[in-house]
Amino acid sequence: MGERSFSSQVPYHHKVGVPPRQNLFKEFQATVKETFFSDDPLRPFKDQTKSRKFILGIEAIFPILSWGRNYSFKKFRGDLIAGLTIASLCIPQDIGYAKLANLAPQYGLYSSFVPPLIYAVMGSSRDIAIGPVAVVSLLLGTLLQNEIDPIANPTDYRRLAFTATFFAGITQAILGVFRLGFLIDFLSHAAIVGFMGGAAITIALQQLKGFLGIVKFTKKSDIISVMQSVFSSAHHGWNWQTIVIGASFLTFLLFAKHIGKNKKLFWVPAIAPLISVILATFFVYITGADKKGVAIVKHIDKGINPSSVKEIYWSGDYLAKGFRIGVVAGMIALTEAIAIGRTFASKKDYQIDGNKEMVALGAMNVVGSMTSCYVATGSFSRSAVNYMAGCETAVSNIVMSIVVFLTLLFITPLFKYTPNAILSAIIISAVINLVDYQAAILIWKIDKFDFVACMGAFFGVVFGSVEIGLLIAVSISFAKILLQVTRPRTAILGKIPRTTVYRNIQQYPEATKVPGVVIVRVDSAIYFSNSNYVKERILRWLMDEEEQIIGDYHTRIQFLIVEMSPVTDIDTSGIHALEELYKSLQKRDIQLVLANPGSLVIDKLHTSNFANLLGEDKIFLTVAEAVTYCYPKLTEDP
Amino acid sequence: MGERSFSSQVPYHHKVGVPPRQNLFKEFQATVKETFFSDDPLRPFKDQTKSRKFILGIEAIFPILSWGRNYSFKKFRGDLIAGLTIASLCIPQDIGYAKLANLAPQYGLYSSFVPPLIYAVMGSSRDIAIGPVAVVSLLLGTLLQNEIDPIANPTDYRRLAFTATFFAGITQAILGVFRLGFLIDFLSHAAIVGFMGGAAITIALQQLKGFLGIVKFTKKSDIISVMQSVFSSAHHGWNWQTIVIGASFLTFLLFAKHIGKNKKLFWVPAIAPLISVILATFFVYITGADKKGVAIVKHIDKGINPSSVKEIYWSGDYLAKGFRIGVVAGMIALTEAIAIGRTFASKKDYQIDGNKEMVALGAMNVVGSMTSCYVATGSFSRSAVNYMAGCETAVSNIVMSIVVFLTLLFITPLFKYTPNAILSAIIISAVINLVDYQAAILIWKIDKFDFVACMGAFFGVVFGSVEIGLLIAVSISFAKILLQVTRPRTAILGKIPRTTVYRNIQQYPEATKVPGVVIVRVDSAIYFSNSNYVKERILRWLMDEEEQIIGDYHTRIQFLIVEMSPVTDIDTSGIHALEELYKSLQKRDIQLVLANPGSLVIDKLHTSNFANLLGEDKIFLTVAEAVTYCYPKLTEDP
Repeated sequence: MGERSFSSQVPYHHKVGVPPRQNLFKEFQATVKETFFSDDPLRPFKDQTKSRKFILGIEAIFPILSWGRNYSFKKFRGDLIAGLTIASLCIPQDIGYAKLANLAPQYGLYSSFVPPLIYAVMGSSRDIAIGPVAVVSLLLGTLLQNEIDPIANPTDYRRLAFTATFFAGITQAILGVFRLGFLIDFLSHAAIVGFMGGAAITIALQQLKGFLGIVKFTKKSDIISVMQSVFSSAHHGWNWQTIVIGASFLTFLLFAKHIGKNKKLFWVPAIAPLISVILATFFVYITGADKKGVAIVKHIDKGINPSSVKEIYWSGDYLAKGFRIGVVAGMIALTEAIAIGRTFASKKDYQIDGNKEMVALGAMNVVGSMTSCYVATGSFSRSAVNYMAGCETAVSNIVMSIVVFLTLLFITPLFKYTPNAILSAIIISAVINLVDYQAAILIWKIDKFDFVACMGAFFGVVFGSVEIGLLIAVSISFAKILLQVTRPRTAILGKIPRTTVYRNIQQYPEATKVPGVVIVRVDSAIYFSNSNYVKERILRWLMDEEEQIIGDYHTRIQFLIVEMSPVTDIDTSGIHALEELYKSLQKRDIQLVLANPGSLVIDKLHTSNFANLLGEDKIFLTVAEAVTYCYPKLTEDP
Repeated sequence: MGERSFSSQVPYHHKVGVPPRQNLFKEFQATVKETFFSDDPLRPFKDQTKSRKFILGIEAIFPILSWGRNYSFKKFRGDLIAGLTIASLCIPQDIGYAKLANLAPQYGLYSSFVPPLIYAVMGSSRDIAIGPVAVVSLLLGTLLQNEIDPIANPTDYRRLAFTATFFAGITQAILGVFRLGFLIDFLSHAAIVGFMGGAAITIALQQLKGFLGIVKFTKKSDIISVMQSVFSSAHHGWNWQTIVIGASFLTFLLFAKHIGKNKKLFWVPAIAPLISVILATFFVYITGADKKGVAIVKHIDKGINPSSVKEIYWSGDYLAKGFRIGVVAGMIALTEAIAIGRTFASKKDYQIDGNKEMVALGAMNVVGSMTSCYVATGSFSRSAVNYMAGCETAVSNIVMSIVVFLTLLFITPLFKYTPNAILSAIIISAVINLVDYQAAILIWKIDKFDFVACMGAFFGVVFGSVEIGLLIAVSISFAKILLQVTRPRTAILGKIPRTTVYRNIQQYPEATKVPGVVIVRVDSAIYFSNSNYVKERILRWLMDEEEQIIGDYHTRIQFLIVEMSPVTDIDTSGIHALEELYKSLQKRDIQLVLANPGSLVIDKLHTSNFANLLGEDKIFLTVAEAVTYCYPKLTEDP
């Protein structure tokens, strides 16, 4: 049996280290630092003079002061081109997205004027393009119309929208200031993919109204209600002229998108929407198609954003409702913006300070809510165009903002004859990219549970509503976290041949068990949420092993080695579980041996006196050493 | 510098194992099994005939059928003595606890008659003593009186109490049937210690009413309101005769408790309450103290439990309220019962099936709600007495139940002259043990965060209410779990002298870093909740290390080894984070190397194609092997 292979291979025994005790304050400080200041934001302030610190502080709030100093004409050329491109893309999108939020078209444009300016001054992403986005518009529209009917009572509806926007901004800023940015990490990537995909389908379905020229349309957003609306109006409610305009331009837009896959021609899909709008508007104006039932935009207020400070509900029932809606919309907007920021930052290899970003986004929405804007955030599609058009800094947002400003001042009346169908076509072609089926396939391959979260959110949105989808996404994400902490993995270890390394025998079937010794690895910190499970699971491993031995002429199991390398921490419940394990084993005449407890664990084993109870000589640096200790002590069964 | 010490010490390289692919169904099955059936409840059913399986199934639901077969007269002697002892303890307690729940005294006795009988048939703990308990009575009373005033509207109040009891039972049974028992593990041991201690103080304070003979007393339970009540009534509201009776018997009870510390005299504190009641009642009857303002029990309904099926609200507003209160009270009752069951099971070394227990407790409360009982559960103090009196099986509960039955039939009228003060004294001496300051001190020593949870719950109950305390306990417990998963620990590793083992250099200050190579260990599964943090933290470690090198003539850092032993799982977000880390490092001309990824991780690294991107030759079984690979490739800086 090669008995000697398990013993005396590790000639030198090193003691398990007990780290020097830290005082309570230092320990607390370290925890707070790691939790809230894990990015070490004060690093540049270290060892600086007072005045220098002040300047650095101002620059931290307004990064434009720092990057503005190195701004050059060459950079401006890139920003100008990018800014013009995203402006041409955003103007038709804004008008359409405002409709998703049940607001008049100019509010979309307003939201592309003020917020980008504020962001350019305070934000730290160089590539993000700020403005209204489809998913947040839809979410806001759905949540708001649950409270107020936007058609019967448009003024109150708009006021509630500004109130929600205000609190969305406040939420974002507070998360940033109190460094709670990590809260958005609780929405898993998979859930976001599903949610976005579902929202895109929902948005596209909503566009069937404008696309088919249906007059009576459901207010619900689930696929069943929408399809019923569509088919019940099939006989008389569709308008063929509208369909022809919509379908031909949608084809054009999708074709433009296809061409844009060649990265040099990225500008084709970027300007296609504006060209479509111009052509379609001109066509309707010439042919008078609006008199044949083709719905048109009709009227957009001229002039820039009016003040809306007095429109925000500062008291009463709607204050609470606006707050609630604002928190939800603000969080989703934040999730999208931060994801965009991180994506492009890693492409160009610069750092984004998540918490600082949140403050910038929050400030921009607070100011926006006072200047007739609704919730703005970073747009995936426009940011990608911005990046490909060669933007260098946030100046491209300023350029876009100026173009929108000029549009508001001079061009809005020209949109009068723009058919709604073309706006629908633009929205459909914009949101179609959010259905990221490749990501879904990858998620399926990598992690099945993630896929359930993804599909749950997707079907929740498509068959329920955006709220239901969001709720499902958040619930499944949390369920996964809770599952992770209640049911940590455990494994039986064996010795890998020709080494002193002990590994999971399921991963390494060639690894051999040590007769008479069971080696279990616990793969998580042992906390109250799992301590009982861990104890019982270890005992069950032991039972399994004992069952295998029955009838076999092996040595009776006399040692249980718990490999604690992955056990990073333990709490009082965990210590209790170990004590109970120890007592149970004692009754069965099996000795408990620990291998490689980490610094926190060994410290707590000592303070709780468990190390003494167990015997300090039963705690080893490695599994190999523990086996070397146990092996010579094994006695053969009678 | 001893260069050779880092290289070529591990002559044999073993490949990182990729476990055989499991099919989807098997994988899913394994997860479900580990989550819901981790205790493998079907193990005894394996390889049995059909009829045997049926019998085993019946026995699983009614364990009495299995242990009853081996029941002997010797066991009965133990159970009889234990049952009589806990009966003498429970009768006065029941009358007092019913008051805490704002119910008439007989309901306490009812709840000690039916539920123990049901439990004896279905339960699997041999030591638990079933009946009303102080904390659940207080909780139920507080929650119920928020809805209905027990004095103005006693009938509706009682009906709501039965409704809540019904749903408490349903909640418990459902948790058991669907094997969701692990949900109660989310309340940490520390939070329970704090909550129980706070509740005990609150209950003791409430007793000042009966103890001091105060007529006008606050309905609130926080310490400030109670103290104001007590002192504002100091001049005229106290009754000295009451105080004399209460104080003398409290002294007697506490003295009896002191004597009981000698384990042979455990029966002294167990029968002291009943003796006090008899003596005090006799004394009041003789002296006519009730006419001098000593409040007495006055009246207890004679006869056994009437049916209360028709009293439960099966519809309407109170149904929902009863449901909500029942869920909370049921969970707390469950937590207490399971904790007791586990404690005594580990003392006598038998196994408790948590989920089966929940079904038994649930069934007992459902039946109880239909027979005029309120929420019953396991009592800490009575279970301890039961254990010490030598109970052998749940028959001791049946004995107790029969004694309570006889009491209800014949003895209740004798309680007429029992002074309330003696009941208060009994309750105070009973709950005083719940203030477990030694546990609190141990918690402080072991885990500071746990201590915060403990104190939060304690002060929440004492200065707020039981609900607030409970909310704080649950919130802090959850916050700890979330913190654990968002901010996993990471460590820099160094080589322990004279070994090939790499360990945390903070725990082992003697460990030496490998120049030019940074070795980081990540101490948690990498999931969406922490993937971004992990990536940034690793990069920050790298920065720290690079800073230390500046001015030093070391080799430039060229390799980053991530030790993945504790990384038990990874999801799509985690893979993305690794990809981003890889790209960031590539730009800095640093090579990423992985050591010892587990079976799930290596599988996902392959399916996501990251293993190919990185290069399979950069994944090693141990850190030592990874270092051996890197070391010869290091180039000196110019």
